[in-house]
This record gives sequence, C-alpha cells and structure tokens, in this order.
Amino acid sequence: MGGDQGPLITIPSAIMAIQSLPNLHLILCGDEAVITTELARLNISQESLSQHDQLSIFSTTEIVEMDDKPAFALRNKKDSSMRKALDLVHEGKAQACVSAGNTGALFSMAHFVLKTLPGVERPALISSLPTHEDDKHVFMLDLGANVFCDSHVLYQFGVMGSVMAAQVDSVENPRVALLNMGEEAMKGSDHIKQAALELSANDEINYIGFIEGSDIFSNKADVIVCDGFVGNVALKTCEGVARLVYKKSEVFCSQNIFTKLMATLFKPSLKKLFKSVNPDQYNGASLIGLRGIVVKSHGNANARAFYSAIMEAVKEVERQVPTKIKSSLEQGLSLP
Amino acid sequence: MGGDQGPLITIPSAIMAIQSLPNLHLILCGDEAVITTELARLNISQESLSQHDQLSIFSTTEIVEMDDKPAFALRNKKDSSMRKALDLVHEGKAQACVSAGNTGALFSMAHFVLKTLPGVERPALISSLPTHEDDKHVFMLDLGANVFCDSHVLYQFGVMGSVMAAQVDSVENPRVALLNMGEEAMKGSDHIKQAALELSANDEINYIGFIEGSDIFSNKADVIVCDGFVGNVALKTCEGVARLVYKKSEVFCSQNIFTKLMATLFKPSLKKLFKSVNPDQYNGASLIGLRGIVVKSHGNANARAFYSAIMEAVKEVERQVPTKIKSSLEQGLSLP
Repeated sequence: MGGDQGPLITIPSAIMAIQSLPNLHLILCGDEAVITTELARLNISQESLSQHDQLSIFSTTEIVEMDDKPAFALRNKKDSSMRKALDLVHEGKAQACVSAGNTGALFSMAHFVLKTLPGVERPALISSLPTHEDDKHVFMLDLGANVFCDSHVLYQFGVMGSVMAAQVDSVENPRVALLNMGEEAMKGSDHIKQAALELSANDEINYIGFIEGSDIFSNKADVIVCDGFVGNVALKTCEGVARLVYKKSEVFCSQNIFTKLMATLFKPSLKKLFKSVNPDQYNGASLIGLRGIVVKSHGNANARAFYSAIMEAVKEVERQVPTKIKSSLEQGLSLP
Repeated sequence: MGGDQGPLITIPSAIMAIQSLPNLHLILCGDEAVITTELARLNISQESLSQHDQLSIFSTTEIVEMDDKPAFALRNKKDSSMRKALDLVHEGKAQACVSAGNTGALFSMAHFVLKTLPGVERPALISSLPTHEDDKHVFMLDLGANVFCDSHVLYQFGVMGSVMAAQVDSVENPRVALLNMGEEAMKGSDHIKQAALELSANDEINYIGFIEGSDIFSNKADVIVCDGFVGNVALKTCEGVARLVYKKSEVFCSQNIFTKLMATLFKPSLKKLFKSVNPDQYNGASLIGLRGIVVKSHGNANARAFYSAIMEAVKEVERQVPTKIKSSLEQGLSLP
C-alpha cells in the first residue's frame, strides 16, 4: 500500500517480477478490495488468483501514512500492510519485505519486529550508487538510519558493506573506504580514526583508507562508510546538484534558436542522462544488519523502479545476505 | 606564492584588480626575484614599481608548500609569504589577506596570528554557492575549518553567516537554516536541535528551520549552517556529482553521429554550464570570526578566479565584515 501511488505502482511491478522469475512467489499485503481491483485491471481474476502459484494476498486493514511518526506507526498500526509484511518475514512465511512506504516507520518497525543480527549494534541503510564506470557501482552506508555512529558501529558498517558488495554485486575483495574530510590519516574525528584502525585490523576486509566526497563516484572504492547524518546529507546533496544541473541546462537550452533546437532533439536523452546520474533515482536501498531482508523503494518510484527494488530483495535472498553478514562479523570478532 | 601555479596566476590577477579599482593597493608578499620577473613580463619595471601607488612588494624568503602539515608550517615557516601576509593584516599594514596556498596551513596561521573576535569560539570557512536563481546565492558554513561543532558554535555560525549575506550580498533579513537529515523538528542530533533553539531565540536572526541536502541550491535559504565535517563532505560531493555528470555527458555525446554533432556544436557552452554548477569553482571562501579578513582561493584557480577572490576581500573590507560580526554577536549575547 506504500509509496506515493500505492498499488497502482506496486502491483504492476509485482506482475512484472513474477513474469520474469518463474520461481518467485509474492505475497501482496494490503487492502484486499483495492488489490483485487488492481489485479483485475491487469487481467488476473479473483478465481485465478486462488490457484495462482506465484501470487497471494495477505489482507490487512490499516495503512501507515507517509506522514505518520515512526513511534506512532509502531504503536498503533499493528495491522498495517507494512507491519504485516515484516511479521511474515519474522515468522519465516516470507524471505524478504519490499516497501515504498514511510521510511522512518519502516526502519522502526523492521528494527522492532526483526531485531538485529547477533553482535550487530545498529542496522544501516545501504544503497548502490553510480560511478564513472558504467558497469561499476559503489555501496554507501549508512544513508540515514542512524544519526551518530561510534567507531565500532562504523567498523561493523564496513564489514556489512563488504558483504553486500561481494554478494549482491559479486565484487571480489571489495575495497572499503571511510568517508572523511581529507585523505590524510590525521584528518577527521577521533571515532573515524579509530574505525580506520579497527577496519585495518580485520584481514578479511580490504580497507583502503579515507575517501573524500569528491571521490564517491570515482570508482576508487566499492564500499563507502559514514554515519547516517553525513550519508543522508551527501545523498540528498547529490539530488540537489542533479536538480540544479537540470534546471540550469533548461535555462541554457532556451538561450537561442540553436540551443532550442538541441533541446527539442535531445531533451528525452538529456533527461535520461540526468536521471542516470541522480543517485536518488537508484532504487532499492536495503536495511541491513537485521535478521531478515528489508528493501526500501523510493516513495515516488515508478513500476520499473519498484520492480528493481523487488529484484534487489530476490538477490539478497539468493545470496543469503543476512547469514553472510552474521558470519563475517563473527570472523572479525574472533580476530586477536 | 601559493596555489598550483603561484605568481604566474596571482600576479596577473593582482594587475587586473588594481586596474579595475583605482584606490586598491596590493602588497605582493613573496620571493622578490620571482615577483619582479613576473611583473616585468607584464610590463611593470622595477623602477616604475618604486613609484607605483597601487603595488608594492614585501619580500619573504620561505614558501609554505602545498603538502606542509599545518603545525609544521606554523612552527617553521615564519618568513613565508603566507605568514607575512597575515602578519601585515595583524599589524594593520594590510586590511585583508588573500591566498591560494595550503588550506590547512592558512587556517592554522590565520587563527594563530589574527586570533578570533571577542566571544567567537571558532572561526569558520564560508563560501557562496549557486542556486536555481541565477542572481541569488547561498552562503554555506562551516566548509571544513572545524571537524565537530557544538550547538553554540553552530549558533555563532548562523549569526556570522547572516552578517556575511547581509553585508557581502546585500540580502535583507537573510534566511538562516540549519542543514539536517530531515525538515522535521525531531530529526537530527541533540546539538543541532539545541542550535535551532538558540537561533530562534535571537530576534535579529531570521532563522527559518532545518533544510535538507536536496534543498541547498533551491534558494530556500540565504545561509546554511552545518559543522565543518558535514559541510566539507557536502561541498566535495557536489564536486563529485558535477564531475560524474560531465563524464556521463561525454559518454552520452559520443553515442552516435547526432550526439557527436551536438557535442561539437555545444561543447564549449556545455563545459561552461557544468562549470557554473560546480560549487567548487565558486572562488573565494572566507575564514570568518577572526580579527581580520582572510580569503582563501582554490589552489587551482585561474587568473580570473583569483581576481574574484581579491574582489571578495575588497568587499569584506569595504563592508567591515569583522566589525559587523563582532557587533552582531554582542547583540545576541545581550539577549535575555
């Protein structure tokens, strides 16, 4: 039910997903009447649904609104589509939860329902971002789940990010960096310097040092670690710059007859270009460090983007990301 | 002597500056032989210089290298061009110092030589950035002078930023915002929430609330306040996105014959466009909160950009920025 357009987006995406993966089963949590209407519009009748081996409905009566406070949703929306989807993961009836709903509420509920993996201090929001190389991405975490993170939390994020890059993107020996205000070892806060020492001490982690904001997209690292405040500001600043570039290029294109001609000819392509470099459009951020898989889609995702979020969840299920995170952290713990 | 190309850039800029402002006097601090050679190349002979009423040379024997550690430069480079320029400001023989040299060294030396204004806890690095509106800018601070800032330091940055916007950009009643991970009052760290209370309590400050990274360039605020770590990451991330857009657009332009044609026709304009939205190219960041005016130019500034940094210093001298900051902070202090 989540996201700006709810089932109008999520259900077509679900159909796309089951069509592309014959062994995927999706449980649609939400208002049954709304879901069946939308399915009927897509030529899936209520009768065929009862025999459908890839789709089922889990009927819920409440919806977490986009402006519900996390604590309010956690206390009062126990029969919401969001809460029930997480409950299904907790009960082992589903292997992952995908939602385009209220981000804060999803974090709080997921943390409360699924709990963190043994030894994990804080879950983190992680997403893959574009780099200068078309086929290479960089995983960045935390993107806003935690305001402040001490050195050991940052260390754990490094380990968790390394697992994500290795498992989800099949990167061998992922390069892990800490986001800092300079590359020199003396720069930054004490907890970042301490996190650097902890990451260096773990032989399983390919820690490469500090990285600056200007190099997030340079393909110098596969994993970039920062606290949630800094990650959130960095990600949203990217969105701001992308918007500024788009706005300025519109003004630029309306300058004279030549630029207008160019704009007419290339506007769709240019739009696509700017979209490709707006990291906010990369869909499917994951909340990791929990005893279950939770993927967060943007609220304004279109059907294609929400489909990507479902596929991200499938990948994490197939690669058993939570299990791998657990064992990687345990390996780190057993170090001298 | 500072910057990637030293006097090859700074001296032509100085000549441009004195030509455009007949009552400007510039003292060129540095290696006298290098300076006179460069001046001669620009048709200013040693003899004419002795009678020149807008230019003089202050001869120094040392240079702060770009990779000198700040503490090392502070201890050992007492006859450097950078140190002497700051000494001249301290002694009242110059009204401002402009440097394209080692940023960390300039901060340390400026802080040591000039000292902070009475009541100022920390100096801050401030710069004006572009917004969606061509003729409007936003001042952002701190951009990296301080790793961590408590609530009162953030409050003082709000006051100092407000003075800069009012004096340097002639903004009436500048809108001051705190950079945060969300717009809601409950978001962010305790010291940001406390800074919000302090700014709200000062009637002289038009505090408008929290702002997210995505709105830095939206012209919603005239002053954006954050700690130096976050500001540095945000600014450098902008640079990273701008580079990414440029890189991707190059790939885009080489796709087919039409895009190649477009690239050939519009490359210079596109280059200009991307430059205009790269906040890193906005030259002339100021170190404020000190008993003197210090403007930092990018090390890779060209003559035009270094000229902008000189003009920024002139404006701050004319508008008596340090005096105004002092009196604004004193007004705030006298509040109940």
